[in-house]
Amino acid sequence: MPKLVLIRHGQSAWNLENRFTGWWDVDVTEKGAAEAKAAGELMAAKGLDFDLTFTSLQTRAIKTLNLALEAMGRLWLPTEKHWRLNERHYGGLTGLNKAETAAKHGDEQVHIWRRSFDIPPPIEEVGGPYDMTSDRRYAGIDIPKTESLKDTIARVLPYWEERIAPELRAGQRVLISAHGNSLRALVKHLSNIPDDEITGLEIPTGQPIVYELADDLSATDRYYLSER
Amino acid sequence: MPKLVLIRHGQSAWNLENRFTGWWDVDVTEKGAAEAKAAGELMAAKGLDFDLTFTSLQTRAIKTLNLALEAMGRLWLPTEKHWRLNERHYGGLTGLNKAETAAKHGDEQVHIWRRSFDIPPPIEEVGGPYDMTSDRRYAGIDIPKTESLKDTIARVLPYWEERIAPELRAGQRVLISAHGNSLRALVKHLSNIPDDEITGLEIPTGQPIVYELADDLSATDRYYLSER
Repeated sequence: MPKLVLIRHGQSAWNLENRFTGWWDVDVTEKGAAEAKAAGELMAAKGLDFDLTFTSLQTRAIKTLNLALEAMGRLWLPTEKHWRLNERHYGGLTGLNKAETAAKHGDEQVHIWRRSFDIPPPIEEVGGPYDMTSDRRYAGIDIPKTESLKDTIARVLPYWEERIAPELRAGQRVLISAHGNSLRALVKHLSNIPDDEITGLEIPTGQPIVYELADDLSATDRYYLSER
Repeated sequence: MPKLVLIRHGQSAWNLENRFTGWWDVDVTEKGAAEAKAAGELMAAKGLDFDLTFTSLQTRAIKTLNLALEAMGRLWLPTEKHWRLNERHYGGLTGLNKAETAAKHGDEQVHIWRRSFDIPPPIEEVGGPYDMTSDRRYAGIDIPKTESLKDTIARVLPYWEERIAPELRAGQRVLISAHGNSLRALVKHLSNIPDDEITGLEIPTGQPIVYELADDLSATDRYYLSER
């Protein structure tokens, strides 16, 4: 039976400071690194194993993957890194903490951006402090200036269909280390979660989420590995 | 101009104990991890950058690569891992330290195995303590039971020709993190070093070796990055 595990990166410096991070390349904290290692140890203890791994182009997800794989004795597994698994781009909110955002835009507006499915925040201006358009890793990519969750899903799913789903159908066991919103995109797709519910679904850091999949990749079960 | 950097993994636990390691999957020491990080910092400080990275299926080389890339802010670079970049397989010597090997086989014989170009040590027996034939990472590969340096070169070079050289010719900048003998294979090939000299060429751990290459990939210069 094909098996898929999703893991959100361990706590990052900006998770801790409650700042909108998005595409900004923030590292994991010591706690986040420990979460990643513990996730690998848990997967090994539960007898999980993989053939292929996927992650984003962002340090916090790559390091989480590497630390988990190291704890499993599986650093040698192939890893494909792709921008389509990056976190949702928070546009002009990037770098602001909750208080700063509320002071600038008002509580109600912030709530709308956080919880609406299809309303993107204002764009990150070119040349702004968190503008990533000149980052070499995104050369040749028409990177977003802001994204709603709907936008994020729209750029994650083609990668799922083109690169990940075919491997699962071929019997490969897959581990994906990514971000709160790129994983929401996958969970929404696999578990058929409605637009107005997915925005409220919290994906905890460093917790392996196991999907049992039928041959057509419809989900037959989804659970936190720590609860089984 | 295409550019290539080779790096031998940082000090491993068995480098420290002076034991034949070969394909056994030994981790880097704290010193080895620090060497890897320092190598990344040096490459960044000297303005080196890469498009593609290659390593073996062995933890010490993969971790060295990851630590160096992290220090460069380049964890997001693509990495291809392949068994053909693994260390020379030391056969039945695997796991023995210098004193044990001398006691078992005599100093002169040990010197011959260490320094001859084409004489392999005795094979590692199937079911022996360091037999890797049932390791899942080598499934489907007819892995060696022992190797001379000549044997190692013979399995490294096809990978160079098929995967690495075409990328260099296409203008990609390449970093390879590997092992004393798989790197000897590349240095012998690139620098036209005779059989009887290559066995004595020491490749220090954690020291980036820079190759300047002409368009046909003939070497125009080779130096330790720390010396420029």
